Amino acid sequence: MNRIEVCFSPGEYHLYQESFDLVVVLDVLRATSAICTAIEHGVKEIIPVATVEEARELQAKGYIAAAERGGQIVEGFDLGNSPYSYMDPQLKGKSVVLTTTNGTKAIDMARSKDTVVVGALNNLNALCDWLIEQERDILVLGSGWKDKFNLEDTICGGAIADQCLASGKFYADEDSTVAAKFIFRSSRDNMFAFLKASSHRRRLRALDLNEDVKYCLTPNNCTAIPVLKNGSLVQLNHEHLSSS
Amino acid sequence: MNRIEVCFSPGEYHLYQESFDLVVVLDVLRATSAICTAIEHGVKEIIPVATVEEARELQAKGYIAAAERGGQIVEGFDLGNSPYSYMDPQLKGKSVVLTTTNGTKAIDMARSKDTVVVGALNNLNALCDWLIEQERDILVLGSGWKDKFNLEDTICGGAIADQCLASGKFYADEDSTVAAKFIFRSSRDNMFAFLKASSHRRRLRALDLNEDVKYCLTPNNCTAIPVLKNGSLVQLNHEHLSSS
Repeated sequence: MNRIEVCFSPGEYHLYQESFDLVVVLDVLRATSAICTAIEHGVKEIIPVATVEEARELQAKGYIAAAERGGQIVEGFDLGNSPYSYMDPQLKGKSVVLTTTNGTKAIDMARSKDTVVVGALNNLNALCDWLIEQERDILVLGSGWKDKFNLEDTICGGAIADQCLASGKFYADEDSTVAAKFIFRSSRDNMFAFLKASSHRRRLRALDLNEDVKYCLTPNNCTAIPVLKNGSLVQLNHEHLSSS
Repeated sequence: MNRIEVCFSPGEYHLYQESFDLVVVLDVLRATSAICTAIEHGVKEIIPVATVEEARELQAKGYIAAAERGGQIVEGFDLGNSPYSYMDPQLKGKSVVLTTTNGTKAIDMARSKDTVVVGALNNLNALCDWLIEQERDILVLGSGWKDKFNLEDTICGGAIADQCLASGKFYADEDSTVAAKFIFRSSRDNMFAFLKASSHRRRLRALDLNEDVKYCLTPNNCTAIPVLKNGSLVQLNHEHLSSS
């Protein structure tokens, strides 16, 4: 049996990370949903960077760069973390530098692990199918909101834990995992309504981003599994990783 | 309107504490349940200390001292944190020094706040009635398990938030508070069964402490509200605090 646990936010990562060398990073609203969408729609790679300054430097070197802070596109950038913007055919085959409030920080934090993949509700089934095949211990890391717990990543983490546990090949020890699974099961029939009280949905509603929220809460509109390779998120090469 | 929020564990306290000068500390299994029970049954004061060493020093000076680590009474002490042990008539009017794995650490952390009270399911209604009267912002702090999220404190925190919010005098902003309230509402009809998967219940079951767990999950068998005064937890003097 392998173990799967959900860690709610980067602020608690140090309490959970030790036993795991496979980490799934989630930032459902909206960074990891955008990353899955980008890879699905043919973007060659997403280069996650932790700071706006790093994104600016790479932009100055000619990279397409995207930056989001507090739900909005940072001045001087053409892209933020709206998934729809990554469906643009002009981005096909391109490299895109990305920094976001929470998601890219969580990816950065997990960087030292052997395998870091990106999850969202959008790629839920494809991701879980792959995770179940790996026969490895898995830590699911929510990006939270400025190190605090958030509902949407918890729901997604619970969905991943639920599917992996249902395979019979995993166990979970932590109360956070039990709670995430429970919150997912209670919300799955109407996540949009369930999240109406959540702090981040209120933030995004104020920014008129309801369409983005609906997209991000739609399971399985992607099959891409972005994986971190040499600092870039690229489409997982199943054969390579499974045999590594 | 005043604000009420639930912080899951001491590890996240720094992210939540700034806006609050009234903190409710919870350690449902079993420290704060034991403290409420002790005060209810006439113990004069509980002196919470963070370390076993401090408890030993005060024991050497003649204090009755209690120490629990990992669910068990520490060697050299007669008392741990079983609520039943604090019903002993011989403890009436006495001072008791107490150190526990998580609860006394959380109390210690909140010590700098203007008002620190101790909550449990045992004193739920009495505590909430008092909190609602205060017209102050309230942070409910779960003791967690070694800085991690736990289910039982989250349920109790959700119960307190739910009751305060129902008064119409409070609002909540954090997703942690929304989640705690939701988990409480989903579990309240059978908390014992709901917690069967929780990590700490498994720990206590292994130690044959199911009777303690049942007691701790029984709402409103106490009306005592322990409050921190000069380093000791004593019965709240309603008139004094309300006018302070």
